[in-house]
Amino acid sequence: MSAVKVIKIGGKVIDDDQKLDTFLEEFVSIKEPKVLIHGGGSIASKMGEQLGIKPNMVDGRRITDAKTLEVITMVYGGLVNKKIVAKLQSLGVNAVGLSGADLNIISAKKRDPKPIDFGWVGDVEQVNSEWISKFLNESVIPVLSPLTHDGNGNMLNTNADTIASSVASALSAEFDTELMLCFEQPGVMNGQKLITEMNLLLYRHLKGSGIVTNGMIPKIHVGFQALKNGVKKVSIRHFEDVAKMDSGTVFISN
Amino acid sequence: MSAVKVIKIGGKVIDDDQKLDTFLEEFVSIKEPKVLIHGGGSIASKMGEQLGIKPNMVDGRRITDAKTLEVITMVYGGLVNKKIVAKLQSLGVNAVGLSGADLNIISAKKRDPKPIDFGWVGDVEQVNSEWISKFLNESVIPVLSPLTHDGNGNMLNTNADTIASSVASALSAEFDTELMLCFEQPGVMNGQKLITEMNLLLYRHLKGSGIVTNGMIPKIHVGFQALKNGVKKVSIRHFEDVAKMDSGTVFISN
Repeated sequence: MSAVKVIKIGGKVIDDDQKLDTFLEEFVSIKEPKVLIHGGGSIASKMGEQLGIKPNMVDGRRITDAKTLEVITMVYGGLVNKKIVAKLQSLGVNAVGLSGADLNIISAKKRDPKPIDFGWVGDVEQVNSEWISKFLNESVIPVLSPLTHDGNGNMLNTNADTIASSVASALSAEFDTELMLCFEQPGVMNGQKLITEMNLLLYRHLKGSGIVTNGMIPKIHVGFQALKNGVKKVSIRHFEDVAKMDSGTVFISN
Repeated sequence: MSAVKVIKIGGKVIDDDQKLDTFLEEFVSIKEPKVLIHGGGSIASKMGEQLGIKPNMVDGRRITDAKTLEVITMVYGGLVNKKIVAKLQSLGVNAVGLSGADLNIISAKKRDPKPIDFGWVGDVEQVNSEWISKFLNESVIPVLSPLTHDGNGNMLNTNADTIASSVASALSAEFDTELMLCFEQPGVMNGQKLITEMNLLLYRHLKGSGIVTNGMIPKIHVGFQALKNGVKKVSIRHFEDVAKMDSGTVFISN
């Protein structure tokens, strides 16, 4: 099996052109075939504010109403995705920007409106990795925005970490797959201290004792899911360390 | 040589979900492999207004300043492109949404700022049709937004008719190519009367006598360019007639 790296970049790196450039320059130095999944940063929220769309919150969680979905489709699928692809082309690598609707790469199911109606949010149903493999085999980097579709003509908002984990899981049938979730911290932190290894027992302890925050819990959760689904190596790491062999918090299955 | 249809849809059809659906339903009924190029309609202008971006005009022509380019990248590359792709998937055909930066499909040169600086506007330099052919050979419809890139990391705004003509020209080396420019009129009009055939002599007459309007002149111009570059058949027609054999204004080379 040949190796593939599935790399997610998110958080404030997307909002900061200089950080994004630094990340992409490190990213292209990786020799193995790779897939990039990006989040949207805070640009979509800012754009929504500027367009006078009031954040619609239920239980502290944002609802993806129809207007918000439009903004997300514009910002994630258009602005951020094309900025990254154009930058990669300028660095001499070929790339293709895709949403889940393109080539039907990721189909999703609109989340059940009960108990909470989150609106146009999609839970991944199937990753069709055939075209991703074709691109990888032709040295093209697929750049995926965190958008899926329901097969009925609607785009859906899907968490970028979940997409990264799902794509890595699907590719692991064909490749030796590594998943890296990159952001602006060194990894999972215990206060100021980096946790270098993570297993389920430690995760439960950290969660139970409130050491890992609400934002980190779903990230760790999808990491374990990937490992369970056959992904060979999973880590949460700093975006500047994307090309390093070992870095950040490495997941172990026992 | 196998046949390919390169179809451009623009104007008010993009702004009207029902018209767009009608068009796409007719479009998928075409049996031959096909490429779709879409314009942006007036959504980008409306979005720009909502975001407080004042139209920057020189000699009655709109300048693509940096903010306008961002809006265009969002609306054309994100909102409109993904809406079309998701709809095509729901109609049971596979499609992939692309800008000129994706797979380096269309590289362009930023227009010379003299005599008029139009800003981030690109003139097509090269259409790399290799991936377009690959998609067509695998029954995937490429859906192109009117965006190109300069190879230095910048997206550029490029006229959708020009992109359609350039793509049709590039494909004509490999396929029997037909170009259709579709919009909400029956074709090139002489008052209320459709002009069914167009050649250069008639074009010069219509232009000289002011019968064809400023908006139509560049459309006819790219039609002739395509014919000159080896495209077998060119027409300007109503969007509801996209699947018809003969319709609208048909270009003839003599």
